[in-house]
Amino acid sequence: MQTIDPIHGPNNPTPEEVARMKVKYYGSIIELRPEKEREYRELHADVWPEVREAIAKANIRNFNIYVTEIAGKRLLVSHFEYIGSNPEADFALIGNDPTTKEKWWPLTDACQIRLPGTPEGSQWMPMEQVMHLD
Amino acid sequence: MQTIDPIHGPNNPTPEEVARMKVKYYGSIIELRPEKEREYRELHADVWPEVREAIAKANIRNFNIYVTEIAGKRLLVSHFEYIGSNPEADFALIGNDPTTKEKWWPLTDACQIRLPGTPEGSQWMPMEQVMHLD
Repeated sequence: MQTIDPIHGPNNPTPEEVARMKVKYYGSIIELRPEKEREYRELHADVWPEVREAIAKANIRNFNIYVTEIAGKRLLVSHFEYIGSNPEADFALIGNDPTTKEKWWPLTDACQIRLPGTPEGSQWMPMEQVMHLD
Repeated sequence: MQTIDPIHGPNNPTPEEVARMKVKYYGSIIELRPEKEREYRELHADVWPEVREAIAKANIRNFNIYVTEIAGKRLLVSHFEYIGSNPEADFALIGNDPTTKEKWWPLTDACQIRLPGTPEGSQWMPMEQVMHLD
């Protein structure tokens, strides 16, 4: 698991702005194809620099993915912080990175099965937050 | 959803120490009894002050709980940050709060069904982290 330096481009708040803002938390879930689990783990143990940069530019921080199993289904759970002010616009930016759109997502989407009820246009199913404690 | 001020007791790092440390992330999962979902949501929309204080003293921050449904099962997913240096000792501290141990946990445990494979002595099943991006 690697880390990258924070990026402070035109769409990113300064560290001082981040300290003042109310961070938003996003949790979501998707099924993992068992026969693709090894490939998925290998990809995510060393996420490509272009993909990490696109995520950071979208004001996403502390992005964790977990694996679990429920009722015989392998599942991926994702959790991240959003530190921008326009999540829809920022998340849409990620698809502007050609490496992410044309190379990374085709590989990762092939490892996943979208869950019933997932909104149109979304790969992962959002989970509803029922508690937040600072 | 309420927030509390950070607590800086003898077991808690200072804000400066937090800024320097490597935060650890914990994700876990448990089944929710459908007939108890309303009660669970009401409890967690306004967590009792004693419970919030016990969690903060245990060096747990940004504690979120989500609800989702997989294969007909209602599920709770929890995610938090740990900012201390001895997670086992700090997490065990929470049970020292009499309100949490004698009043809160009996209510919340009755809303949950432990999942197969959950370690002995643990209510929630830990999920394995397969990616972290700062």
